[in-house]
Amino acid sequence: MAKADIGVYGLGTMGSALALNLADNGFQVAVTNRETDWIESFVAEAQDLQGNLVAKHDLQDFVDAIQTPRTILFMIPSGAPMDAMIETISPLLSEGDTIIDGGNADFNETIRRSKTFAGTGLHFVGMGVSGGEKGARFGPSMMVGGTDHSWSQLRPMAEAIAAKFEGNPCVAHLGPDGAGHFVKTVHNGIEYADMQMIAEIYGMLRDQGGQDAAAIGAVFGDWNTGPLQSYLIEASSAALHAIDEKTKQPVVDVILDKAGSKGTGRWTLIEALKLGQSASTIEAAMGARSWSSEKEMRSEAETLLAETTQAASVPSLSDLHDAMQAGRILGHAQGFRVLQAASDAFEWALDMSKIAEIWRAGCIIRSALLDELMDAFQNGLPHGHLILAPAMRETLAKTVPALRRVVAAAALSGQPMPALSAALVWYDTMALGRGTANMIQAQRDFFGHHGFARIDATGKHHGDWGEA
Amino acid sequence: MAKADIGVYGLGTMGSALALNLADNGFQVAVTNRETDWIESFVAEAQDLQGNLVAKHDLQDFVDAIQTPRTILFMIPSGAPMDAMIETISPLLSEGDTIIDGGNADFNETIRRSKTFAGTGLHFVGMGVSGGEKGARFGPSMMVGGTDHSWSQLRPMAEAIAAKFEGNPCVAHLGPDGAGHFVKTVHNGIEYADMQMIAEIYGMLRDQGGQDAAAIGAVFGDWNTGPLQSYLIEASSAALHAIDEKTKQPVVDVILDKAGSKGTGRWTLIEALKLGQSASTIEAAMGARSWSSEKEMRSEAETLLAETTQAASVPSLSDLHDAMQAGRILGHAQGFRVLQAASDAFEWALDMSKIAEIWRAGCIIRSALLDELMDAFQNGLPHGHLILAPAMRETLAKTVPALRRVVAAAALSGQPMPALSAALVWYDTMALGRGTANMIQAQRDFFGHHGFARIDATGKHHGDWGEA
Repeated sequence: MAKADIGVYGLGTMGSALALNLADNGFQVAVTNRETDWIESFVAEAQDLQGNLVAKHDLQDFVDAIQTPRTILFMIPSGAPMDAMIETISPLLSEGDTIIDGGNADFNETIRRSKTFAGTGLHFVGMGVSGGEKGARFGPSMMVGGTDHSWSQLRPMAEAIAAKFEGNPCVAHLGPDGAGHFVKTVHNGIEYADMQMIAEIYGMLRDQGGQDAAAIGAVFGDWNTGPLQSYLIEASSAALHAIDEKTKQPVVDVILDKAGSKGTGRWTLIEALKLGQSASTIEAAMGARSWSSEKEMRSEAETLLAETTQAASVPSLSDLHDAMQAGRILGHAQGFRVLQAASDAFEWALDMSKIAEIWRAGCIIRSALLDELMDAFQNGLPHGHLILAPAMRETLAKTVPALRRVVAAAALSGQPMPALSAALVWYDTMALGRGTANMIQAQRDFFGHHGFARIDATGKHHGDWGEA
Repeated sequence: MAKADIGVYGLGTMGSALALNLADNGFQVAVTNRETDWIESFVAEAQDLQGNLVAKHDLQDFVDAIQTPRTILFMIPSGAPMDAMIETISPLLSEGDTIIDGGNADFNETIRRSKTFAGTGLHFVGMGVSGGEKGARFGPSMMVGGTDHSWSQLRPMAEAIAAKFEGNPCVAHLGPDGAGHFVKTVHNGIEYADMQMIAEIYGMLRDQGGQDAAAIGAVFGDWNTGPLQSYLIEASSAALHAIDEKTKQPVVDVILDKAGSKGTGRWTLIEALKLGQSASTIEAAMGARSWSSEKEMRSEAETLLAETTQAASVPSLSDLHDAMQAGRILGHAQGFRVLQAASDAFEWALDMSKIAEIWRAGCIIRSALLDELMDAFQNGLPHGHLILAPAMRETLAKTVPALRRVVAAAALSGQPMPALSAALVWYDTMALGRGTANMIQAQRDFFGHHGFARIDATGKHHGDWGEA
């Protein structure tokens, strides 16, 4: 066998799937893994793709099997293992070789790692991979950050294995160092918000509408044929229809209501805060997951807290549909706003239209909406805000009234809808030309002498507060 | 003059006020400042307190003027200036001396600085000071983190100058290293939420109720005589009554609606996220300030976005009052939850009752509520949650119905009430024994094979999702 086109280090779920995807597309792939017994089982699984795979147990052999300049994809846990790996493998590499971190790394770490490679002749790429195991195997969406040199090496392979939307590969070189991982991080943040909104509508239908899992699954299945078409609605519908083997009940009904989370949602929020932004729909989703962990407290609270709910009619399916549509747009708009702020701060010059483009297939948040967003970005956004794009304004005009009714009903009936509520309140904040921050500034100047800007003059001013 | 009891370095607004407060209470105070011309103007201002003050232009003279073991309070910008100061002054100090950082430092930095003093014989104290200039001059609330040695030196002076609540000084040694600064940080976070809720009610009365500043000021003035009694309601009332000299209009009406912020609100949120918590009312307040900066976008959005509001009656004053009362409790409950999480993570053993106690006077969030919270903490909280304390449950039972009506009206009428909305949705989330995180877990296992817990078995499980 000729030297391999690429090396894949790490044969866990995602690494295996990407290696098989590459081999499937005719590339020669060298593979290895820290635990060498995983290698045998991977090779056994690979079956008729073995002609395109070469498995190595030794790191030097693995490196030697790859053609130079080498492209080596690491699919290992982010953090310390990545740093250790860099230290181990770097001495074995040659000028022009590229190390790709394909895990969900903190983009700040990716920037730090990239800096350590500057001037060494080696290159470092931070690449976000979305789509889960199935996506990795048959077509993920990939967000690449790194040098042009690395991208020119990686590009033919990445484009071949990526998901396609109307023939266009869902992968792009988005910017230097941490750009790819940051875009993936925000992708996941938007994913959190979208999942939470779906869960909130599920809760409204379950608790206020009295509907069972199959009925709610049917609602989502119906929605998936219209403007809400998306992987997450489709997946939610399918999940709601699934039956638990043990109890013959719907699986969702036997799942404990405690949600886990990994780093990306939190990273999105921390970075948004550092950038002076607020992604309140994502925060609401993150908060909902955090609060879900206090299961015992909530169970006791339900019995201890007085009944305070008010009569409210259950929102119609049409209103819930439109609320989800508005909420989804607003969640995406917040995510892209954070991307823009990061692009400005880190001088990445992110192409928002390109990002929407490569999210149209392969990734978890792929949806009909993203195709519309790509067009919206291409036409330019007033003040950089998606909600001001003509097509979005038109949809919001039709759907926000329903979002209002849904959020109001939730408030009265005690049905928690944190992400949809946050979406609406953000929309209303941005739609108010004269807000209430003047009151905040008055308070701050009153007790802290912080000063304020006036509507009729430049500069910093103070109020004459008398006996303040 | 005998050697000074304490040194104060930094004669800005807060440093001057604290030095005068100390001198006023009979302590001998050595003062100095980096810009030495400030020293003269301070001394001139000090008037009849000069007998208790000794001003030094030279750092060595300043240090020599203080009795050993020395207690030196630094009121200078946090960050690099503090690090530079530590480096400069440490060689001049002796075993047992204490450096106090009285600024709003990031508690992580305070922990880092404390560590550098371990084993040196010198001590480092991070002290949060709340109350603004007037508080510092006549009685602040102070939150002290550091060693017992430092506290025993500082205590008599701190207790003398602190605000008093029914004779009890509003200062306490809350824990080691960063404990004091973190408690101050969360104090400010709660302050952000409380200020925002007041601003939201102001906005509802202004925009939906059509009331002018004086009328709204009168409402707040009235509220300040009842259970909402607090410095922030009092200050808001006074600020709303103030008239601008130039235009003869209410000052609030000439203030631009763009709010500034400093680090503490953001630090609270970032730390909450790192601790797996969510302080959504504080996040909402921070978000509102961030969004206020996009004034031009908002002005254009108001004209571009379609009218989507629905008919809703303006909430009654009684409902707004009760909504504020419920919102305040929920904002504080979130803040204290974050404090508990940090106390657990950093092993500070924070005394929540003591914290409520020293917040009852002197600080910006002082209120009738804090006296109730102190009692609630003393009686122990079910699951560590303030909202489950009997007295809080009773008040929430009476006030949450109004909060529901206010949030619902806000949602329908397009009046943004982010903090009050977040408060309600948090309450409803915690009050729901069976939440909707099962749906989130179903999604996560469906597309990411993350696994879930079952309601009827231990361990990690996966669903049989078929063609997932």
